[in-house]
Amino acid sequence: MRVPARLQPLGWELPHNFLGLDEDASDFDRAKAVILPVPYEATTSFGGGTGAGPAAILEASRYIELYDQELDAEPYEAGIATLPALSLTTAGPADALRELRQAYDALLDISADRFIVMLGGEHSITSAPILAWADRLEGERLSVLQFDAHTDLRAQYEGSPYSHASVMHRVHDRVDLVAVGIRALTREERELARASDHIHLFMADDIHGGDGWMDDVLERLGEKVYISFDVDGFDPALVPSTGTPEPGGLEWYPVMKLLRRVFRERHVVAADVVELAPIPGLAAPDFLVAKLVYKMVGYRFAAE
Amino acid sequence: MRVPARLQPLGWELPHNFLGLDEDASDFDRAKAVILPVPYEATTSFGGGTGAGPAAILEASRYIELYDQELDAEPYEAGIATLPALSLTTAGPADALRELRQAYDALLDISADRFIVMLGGEHSITSAPILAWADRLEGERLSVLQFDAHTDLRAQYEGSPYSHASVMHRVHDRVDLVAVGIRALTREERELARASDHIHLFMADDIHGGDGWMDDVLERLGEKVYISFDVDGFDPALVPSTGTPEPGGLEWYPVMKLLRRVFRERHVVAADVVELAPIPGLAAPDFLVAKLVYKMVGYRFAAE
Amino acid sequence: MRVPARLQPLGWELPHNFLGLDEDASDFDRAKAVILPVPYEATTSFGGGTGAGPAAILEASRYIELYDQELDAEPYEAGIATLPALSLTTAGPADALRELRQAYDALLDISADRFIVMLGGEHSITSAPILAWADRLEGERLSVLQFDAHTDLRAQYEGSPYSHASVMHRVHDRVDLVAVGIRALTREERELARASDHIHLFMADDIHGGDGWMDDVLERLGEKVYISFDVDGFDPALVPSTGTPEPGGLEWYPVMKLLRRVFRERHVVAADVVELAPIPGLAAPDFLVAKLVYKMVGYRFAAE
Amino acid sequence: MRVPARLQPLGWELPHNFLGLDEDASDFDRAKAVILPVPYEATTSFGGGTGAGPAAILEASRYIELYDQELDAEPYEAGIATLPALSLTTAGPADALRELRQAYDALLDISADRFIVMLGGEHSITSAPILAWADRLEGERLSVLQFDAHTDLRAQYEGSPYSHASVMHRVHDRVDLVAVGIRALTREERELARASDHIHLFMADDIHGGDGWMDDVLERLGEKVYISFDVDGFDPALVPSTGTPEPGGLEWYPVMKLLRRVFRERHVVAADVVELAPIPGLAAPDFLVAKLVYKMVGYRFAAE
Amino acid sequence: MRVPARLQPLGWELPHNFLGLDEDASDFDRAKAVILPVPYEATTSFGGGTGAGPAAILEASRYIELYDQELDAEPYEAGIATLPALSLTTAGPADALRELRQAYDALLDISADRFIVMLGGEHSITSAPILAWADRLEGERLSVLQFDAHTDLRAQYEGSPYSHASVMHRVHDRVDLVAVGIRALTREERELARASDHIHLFMADDIHGGDGWMDDVLERLGEKVYISFDVDGFDPALVPSTGTPEPGGLEWYPVMKLLRRVFRERHVVAADVVELAPIPGLAAPDFLVAKLVYKMVGYRFAAE
Amino acid sequence: MRVPARLQPLGWELPHNFLGLDEDASDFDRAKAVILPVPYEATTSFGGGTGAGPAAILEASRYIELYDQELDAEPYEAGIATLPALSLTTAGPADALRELRQAYDALLDISADRFIVMLGGEHSITSAPILAWADRLEGERLSVLQFDAHTDLRAQYEGSPYSHASVMHRVHDRVDLVAVGIRALTREERELARASDHIHLFMADDIHGGDGWMDDVLERLGEKVYISFDVDGFDPALVPSTGTPEPGGLEWYPVMKLLRRVFRERHVVAADVVELAPIPGLAAPDFLVAKLVYKMVGYRFAAE
Repeated sequence: MRVPARLQPLGWELPHNFLGLDEDASDFDRAKAVILPVPYEATTSFGGGTGAGPAAILEASRYIELYDQELDAEPYEAGIATLPALSLTTAGPADALRELRQAYDALLDISADRFIVMLGGEHSITSAPILAWADRLEGERLSVLQFDAHTDLRAQYEGSPYSHASVMHRVHDRVDLVAVGIRALTREERELARASDHIHLFMADDIHGGDGWMDDVLERLGEKVYISFDVDGFDPALVPSTGTPEPGGLEWYPVMKLLRRVFRERHVVAADVVELAPIPGLAAPDFLVAKLVYKMVGYRFAAE
Repeated sequence: MRVPARLQPLGWELPHNFLGLDEDASDFDRAKAVILPVPYEATTSFGGGTGAGPAAILEASRYIELYDQELDAEPYEAGIATLPALSLTTAGPADALRELRQAYDALLDISADRFIVMLGGEHSITSAPILAWADRLEGERLSVLQFDAHTDLRAQYEGSPYSHASVMHRVHDRVDLVAVGIRALTREERELARASDHIHLFMADDIHGGDGWMDDVLERLGEKVYISFDVDGFDPALVPSTGTPEPGGLEWYPVMKLLRRVFRERHVVAADVVELAPIPGLAAPDFLVAKLVYKMVGYRFAAE
Repeated sequence: MRVPARLQPLGWELPHNFLGLDEDASDFDRAKAVILPVPYEATTSFGGGTGAGPAAILEASRYIELYDQELDAEPYEAGIATLPALSLTTAGPADALRELRQAYDALLDISADRFIVMLGGEHSITSAPILAWADRLEGERLSVLQFDAHTDLRAQYEGSPYSHASVMHRVHDRVDLVAVGIRALTREERELARASDHIHLFMADDIHGGDGWMDDVLERLGEKVYISFDVDGFDPALVPSTGTPEPGGLEWYPVMKLLRRVFRERHVVAADVVELAPIPGLAAPDFLVAKLVYKMVGYRFAAE
Repeated sequence: MRVPARLQPLGWELPHNFLGLDEDASDFDRAKAVILPVPYEATTSFGGGTGAGPAAILEASRYIELYDQELDAEPYEAGIATLPALSLTTAGPADALRELRQAYDALLDISADRFIVMLGGEHSITSAPILAWADRLEGERLSVLQFDAHTDLRAQYEGSPYSHASVMHRVHDRVDLVAVGIRALTREERELARASDHIHLFMADDIHGGDGWMDDVLERLGEKVYISFDVDGFDPALVPSTGTPEPGGLEWYPVMKLLRRVFRERHVVAADVVELAPIPGLAAPDFLVAKLVYKMVGYRFAAE
Repeated sequence: MRVPARLQPLGWELPHNFLGLDEDASDFDRAKAVILPVPYEATTSFGGGTGAGPAAILEASRYIELYDQELDAEPYEAGIATLPALSLTTAGPADALRELRQAYDALLDISADRFIVMLGGEHSITSAPILAWADRLEGERLSVLQFDAHTDLRAQYEGSPYSHASVMHRVHDRVDLVAVGIRALTREERELARASDHIHLFMADDIHGGDGWMDDVLERLGEKVYISFDVDGFDPALVPSTGTPEPGGLEWYPVMKLLRRVFRERHVVAADVVELAPIPGLAAPDFLVAKLVYKMVGYRFAAE
Repeated sequence: MRVPARLQPLGWELPHNFLGLDEDASDFDRAKAVILPVPYEATTSFGGGTGAGPAAILEASRYIELYDQELDAEPYEAGIATLPALSLTTAGPADALRELRQAYDALLDISADRFIVMLGGEHSITSAPILAWADRLEGERLSVLQFDAHTDLRAQYEGSPYSHASVMHRVHDRVDLVAVGIRALTREERELARASDHIHLFMADDIHGGDGWMDDVLERLGEKVYISFDVDGFDPALVPSTGTPEPGGLEWYPVMKLLRRVFRERHVVAADVVELAPIPGLAAPDFLVAKLVYKMVGYRFAAE
């Protein structure tokens, strides 16, 4: 609803979009970044609740300062448009992913070089944008930088190839996959990764306590990078609000440091942030994830 | 943000307004009802949380069926516009109420006979619309039908005449006050009510278990009625989500029955629903309050 | 795991089955009743959490007294076997329901006249047992007694004919449907019910406050009855732990009274209890639902 | 700590005693009523948390109006002293009950006819005051009016005769026991009650929906009555905050009606309120129980 | 209430003051430290709940060991008096701060060199003690050491110069401000800090991972230091219980290390700890904050 | 109950044992490891809830990957049998510990060299297995490696020598005690430790930030080691779900590193993990503790 003109000067709350931006700053036409909420949840193993993730991220984002002291800039000035949440069919994951792929393609068609950040929802949705980008990059191989506690490389899970636990298996033969923070996987997933030249795992055990591994990550990434950020990559002390929290995860500053380098030294085509399952009454993880999204936007446009 | 035309056919979620109505059904110009969220909270005694009330009501309302089986109608067809939430100053309740009064007057100025339902927030905000209506009704005395566990008739509370516990004292000399469900008050409040010809209390102890008292309520009400519904009027089994829950409160069906009669037999000029303090993880009370609001809208337009 | 013989005399906790019964009382071969947990959840509208329902019911059941004072009997003596929970595929509701139907048929094949109570999970699973029974009753029409706030008669919902909101539409042409406690439906659902001789709705508004309607319910039921109990049929004060709580629901004693009559005056072939979405830290609704299940078992065998 | 004289005029919060009374109104010497908190918890079956009951009751009581509209009086004027909480040994329930008995006797010795309300904690503590009173009433038999979902008449439970589930067995041969609201018991408990002339059970199933049974309760009670109120006697919609909630419990107004008659027509020597296990974030049940305590005090002194 | 002499030997719980100290150890006259709870909350942006902070800190403090192993001492032996909580008017923040200032001055007047730790409540209350101290230090400039995620240097916020977000703006021209842990601010706040010789920000980004910056902090601090500790300075993994949690915050040991040095090398005149908004059911952050308060008391008197 | 043969091929959920292992992998006869849940809780100081610990650990364990990437192995292949939970008497801790000792001895009698991990429950239960092992090791002195925030060396606590806070005092003259992560103790406990050659405390303050201390720990340990892991040894950011959380605790990777060395360089005869008090809705700490248990099993058999 459009507020009647005579009421517009009243003291209305911030709009319910990412960061609570006014009409101008959130207008699609001039925005360089687009937030696409996809609260899809249908195949989760334990607990559930990722369907409430995008709304919690958007709500928390309204309390984030627009100024970024690390960058000494106000990245929102690039314009950030927040789309309504996309409601996918409940007829099953195959249909839902088909719907998402069509929506994502439609969005790409009108987006030119806008930077799209998809907010999940469960991780299974990630295959749609990755395959959309893999199809679009003619001749060039897409690199996927995955932050995650799990490899999600199972051939199938609970009778479905479309599970959150299988999402990277569905794309791994089309892309170069670089996964960071891994600390829970099956023997089969490990074997698959070892056997493949296109999968590189940075195990959480190996990378805590130093930064040297970041060079290796960069080296493994091609020029075009899609970032898929499963928030369970973070340590559960930071983000307990996820389906299968695994101890020993990533800390805030190393993640920021790596992200900044990747955005600066590669071309990040798009990103997603998935698997936040908000805990009622515990907002801190939602704030962290909202800030993560804003940092990615900031790094992207600071790099330009 | 306006969704770009080429993306509009996608499967977007319901809008985040009351009932999740589409643009047409929620357009201010054609709407006969207006929802005004005022998440003001500054003087609460215990716990707090009423500032989150309006958002919880709106969120729950999106899952309510548009069809009302009691009325055999779809009351939303009258059009229901949801304004953004009004952010009042935190400089103190006197200033905040002045802001609210100005906003409410501005809204009345362009509303013609639209039916305005204000969503609180704490009860202290109720004085603004009541006084606005009392001022507007030239020569005619406004009746206020208050659903509440408390009379809110203190001269002041915690050093302030603007407290939620004082709101009806601030208006009681301008209106006829009929309070239903009362079960917690001070001796002074009781004396004030007894001494006044313009205050009528229907104590919860006296009215549970039968309907006879409803005739008396109707009799006490003049032609023009403002309804102020403090959700702690309900029994805490139904609405534990409030600041000072009192046992022995009102049940759902008697309230509906009384409301229907009041809307049918009097002219309800406006209403408010206040003091919902949502409990994280317990959505049922939010659903009840959202339904209460929709029932009031339905009764109002069914009566036309 | 079987406890080694020498350790068996130690003071072990009650087994984790319905009521915490010992091996003898819970042995499938001699049990007259069977509990089938089906924690399926994939199409829920708001919140979610029904996947945790069966476990919460079983846990709470372990604290229920085995003696039933209304019946002056210990109904568990009939034997109650609790099956492990059935894990349905996440490949989509069509596949999941096919799996459930096969499992239910397999169970029926070996069950003779055992009384099966299926525990959900979301309501969509109900179509499998109903159709299984409809197919089995040659020449005789099955009656379905549905306790519910919603009719669940939509042709489809969120792009799927297999939604919890469509479950009764999927079976309504095969059975006589008698729904009790309804207070939220679409105009289309109401029209469908009005147009059909096989659908009878007992609206919550019409039945609160008296028992006269129970005769009508009995009259509408044929000899063979399947009971599908969506716990949102209860008032949310009793069971807030459900996806879309609707005020004005059923109370405990009228439900018990009706159930007792139905079990006594009809042949209840099987039952399900669905849509409990446990709220962490609020166990009372889980206890109520566990007791409901035990009362149904008690009524069933008291009637023999 | 005593606030230094020069600071006393500042706006300090209400004291942390029952009702938040000032020094004068809560002074032991002039108080006619005494609150004795006993947060003992050691033998609970499910969940636990009764140890936090007294603190929650006291906290909630500070928000209760001092004026009682039913009695048209301010019962606190009789003076209500709140003792600190009694910490019983954790060396085992036998030792703990011995300690409690000694403390209760010491309190009785200096209390003259003060009305003592003990706040639990788990129900096992009730045997101490009952036996203290039974010993003190020379020649006269004490009646115990128990509000409860369970009879607590087991000879022992979990290897202990001191369990909450055995408390009434420990005293039943010394008193006349009248239990109201019972809806969960073992066959052995039922047999014991049937075989005894001194145990009278008013089953919840039999007494909901009317008041006739209240006469029978009064008739069973001798002149001297001790009231033991297990809050699980209430319906779990009112008080979900308890260890083993049972559906179909007592409502607020019938309990008030019965209590008022008992206080008026008998001499209530003392009382306890036990088994509140507060749920974090859900204060409404704590408010109800605090009000229950204040109603008992009010009825007691209104009756004088 | 004073416990009657004959009851005093009973096993009463620890008193409800800081650390649960006995009368002697908590007596104002001999205490060297004073705890002043000020549960004021009126201007919070998100969530709220700081009004419950002081009570949660005091409750948790009762489970802290009195012996401090780092100091090899029992700092409580200096005596710690806990005042009742101060209830400020709800008539608005200007009035409330005036009340607080008067109360603080009254306390200073009788305190001699007692070490006062004020417990909030929202951060806006900090201006009262800072200005009281600035006024008292004739000729000498007060340094304020602020632990915080936010600078709180806005000229005004939500229409009020008395907001928690403006508190340091209200005092910055009277003191030297050294803020540690900052990671969220506006461009205007940054400019103000850069332009001022009296504001020094230690950004969280710059100080994680080493201790070198602590020398710089000490260097910026004058001889007389007031410590204002907003608990959102800590990382949200440690203290999620606050209004606007920001990732990347301070860890426990570096804060202790800095505090110890400041207390040793400067004269800390007083302190406050604010913005704890306890989460029901999550007590760990309350324990941390209670320990922080005790460590400050310990460092203060260990330094003597 | 044994699932009837014809139903066994259906898609049943994972069994409710540690890791959700199938019959073969969890069979006692072939298992090299045994999980013994002892949900005993009777003497807790604050909050409580440890009685729910074992069930939460087992539930979480079902979502842990069986493959361990650090070890490049599937340690469950050694076989892990999960016993039912042991229900100890509520007649008092002395009786309960006697029961536990008898049960533990019975288990040892049939266990040969199986590795038993006991899951608590409160810490007081630890004395039973330690004394059982101390008795069994003829001539050889048992070392106890305790992870804990507290020394638990009080002679008695709350009138009982069997408290969780006294458990190590009860065994300290029979074993060499090496405690890691200590940060809360009494002066008396510190003196006891200083005076004893058999008690070695590694204070949390001293060991954070480096690994050098691990050599000292190893040096203090004899050849036969019992590990008692109180989960409050971890930092509360990782495990807030415990009775008396203390800031400044142990991190995940240092604990893993130390454990691995201990299992490799010593003979760990048995272990326990105690004091998890699950917070409803916050599963991450339960996952961490479940993983801790599996890591211990893995380290134990990787070392063989």
